[in-house]
Amino acid sequence: MSLPPNLQEIEARAQKIRLLIMDVDGVLTDGRVLYLPGGGEAKSFHVRDGLGTQLLIASGVRVALISGREAETVTRRAEELGIKPAMQGVDDKVAAFELITKEADATPEQTAYIGDDLPDLPILDRVGLGFAVADAAPEVRAKAHVVLRAGGGQGAVREACELVLRAKGAWNV
Amino acid sequence: MSLPPNLQEIEARAQKIRLLIMDVDGVLTDGRVLYLPGGGEAKSFHVRDGLGTQLLIASGVRVALISGREAETVTRRAEELGIKPAMQGVDDKVAAFELITKEADATPEQTAYIGDDLPDLPILDRVGLGFAVADAAPEVRAKAHVVLRAGGGQGAVREACELVLRAKGAWNV
Amino acid sequence: MSLPPNLQEIEARAQKIRLLIMDVDGVLTDGRVLYLPGGGEAKSFHVRDGLGTQLLIASGVRVALISGREAETVTRRAEELGIKPAMQGVDDKVAAFELITKEADATPEQTAYIGDDLPDLPILDRVGLGFAVADAAPEVRAKAHVVLRAGGGQGAVREACELVLRAKGAWNV
Amino acid sequence: MSLPPNLQEIEARAQKIRLLIMDVDGVLTDGRVLYLPGGGEAKSFHVRDGLGTQLLIASGVRVALISGREAETVTRRAEELGIKPAMQGVDDKVAAFELITKEADATPEQTAYIGDDLPDLPILDRVGLGFAVADAAPEVRAKAHVVLRAGGGQGAVREACELVLRAKGAWNV
Repeated sequence: MSLPPNLQEIEARAQKIRLLIMDVDGVLTDGRVLYLPGGGEAKSFHVRDGLGTQLLIASGVRVALISGREAETVTRRAEELGIKPAMQGVDDKVAAFELITKEADATPEQTAYIGDDLPDLPILDRVGLGFAVADAAPEVRAKAHVVLRAGGGQGAVREACELVLRAKGAWNV
Repeated sequence: MSLPPNLQEIEARAQKIRLLIMDVDGVLTDGRVLYLPGGGEAKSFHVRDGLGTQLLIASGVRVALISGREAETVTRRAEELGIKPAMQGVDDKVAAFELITKEADATPEQTAYIGDDLPDLPILDRVGLGFAVADAAPEVRAKAHVVLRAGGGQGAVREACELVLRAKGAWNV
Repeated sequence: MSLPPNLQEIEARAQKIRLLIMDVDGVLTDGRVLYLPGGGEAKSFHVRDGLGTQLLIASGVRVALISGREAETVTRRAEELGIKPAMQGVDDKVAAFELITKEADATPEQTAYIGDDLPDLPILDRVGLGFAVADAAPEVRAKAHVVLRAGGGQGAVREACELVLRAKGAWNV
Repeated sequence: MSLPPNLQEIEARAQKIRLLIMDVDGVLTDGRVLYLPGGGEAKSFHVRDGLGTQLLIASGVRVALISGREAETVTRRAEELGIKPAMQGVDDKVAAFELITKEADATPEQTAYIGDDLPDLPILDRVGLGFAVADAAPEVRAKAHVVLRAGGGQGAVREACELVLRAKGAWNV
């Protein structure tokens, strides 16, 4: 199958990916944080995002996350899926990005990122393959290489994982 | 009323059903799992799915579930509706499928299944009547005999139960 | 303003209403019940439904509820809004309906009902003004005098309250 | 860029804003209140609304909230974002409005308000810039200067913050 030029470029970018980093709120979730009385927050994660992440990791791509917020629920979800490192409470996302790529021994070209809002822009400037969730801020959608069809927490992560796996010929269903 | 050929075939398949097995996350729920601080997960179930399940069971069709995950909330929901067995924490869905059909003394032709994602594919290959929820993975929608109009947790289970009951002439409203 | 014949009939029916009874799950909520680990269920109610209910009660119409399920959260919500009686765990909805109308000294013609599913059908057969939420079962939509534009838990109750208040000339905004 | 007359007027109104007051349920949330067994309520807030609020505050605009209900979760969310005062359990919204504008030393012309339902109408009558969320009551949409594209809890607050910041030339992305 021959792809149109734009899709060919995306495929070429995706074939190089060895590391996928994602934001949490608005990407791995739909952006809602449920505040509980007595303290604490709950977050919803989607099972089909979970399977996509696990398949990507099983194929040999490392998956990490960076979050400006901090929540025990995110730690649990990351451990369950094999996402590491899960850097939370991050003020400087670029510094976290550089730490993770260094640790994973991945070049920016070998790194993909999924974001939804303004703090994600400097990372999208750096990566080989940048994704925006469907309901991302306009500036994020404009900067991403791929705007996903699904919104955050609704299958966007699954879609990104599948795109990378397909480009690598590793979507064996 | 005479049905178009495709619907006639579906009706013929549905008339034979004595056992309905369903996946949980993404089928009986909308795929979201709410992670609570301090551990534990919450899941949302839909009352109209519940009534459909109860009517199907009352008509003499057995209903069971198979889940890759494990949650006490699913056990409770299954008990409330009369779903049994409720097999959770299942790694090999085909083995669970074979156990349940054997115990229920139902042939694959007499068994229906509702799924949403890739681990459901091998079961859809085996059953007499395979359903995909509206928001299922494309591979699942392609393999199912019927793609339901409703998404998981939003009435898909109700729709499948009603289809089987109507085919059997047992939808007495 | 002169209304088309059908709307005139609805208006005439609404002008007589002295009692509004509503189902809970799928009407005052969107039909989802959140099962929590360790037992217990949570339900979401909408603030704009709440205001509609309070305005209707303030105008002198009594509001009651009948539910097949039983939950402490429903008791709390009912008390907060002034809904009474709040009959829960009801097996025979018609018996509950007759008890409530008798206690409220309202004839069936003076009673309105909002439902979403099959157990609501016998009550819709009896009342002077029957409402179905937008996402009600087809049989319920077919039997109601008015199919509301909003789904359960999404403003359907507000819409019904407003319709009755407007018909009575008591929507003073 | 020259704007059409209506947008020019909105821009002129937005340039004067020094104080933004918002309602809570239906504005900062989608209107749903999750009733938990054993007492207490949970509410969902959106991260992208949070960032919009923080950027507006950082630009020197004060942000406050007025709620007819009262919840500890709202207090926490307000503290986290720097919203103050957070006046809850308010019966008379106009009195609260006058208290806040006085304390903030802002004229009505320098004050913006975001609302969704009837109790918000008297404040919308008073402010220099009134916003209605997309799913607000018709009367609120009719009275607002701007009907936001997003519904409450789904980005409406973000959209209002961005509009004010852009008018002031302070949206530096």
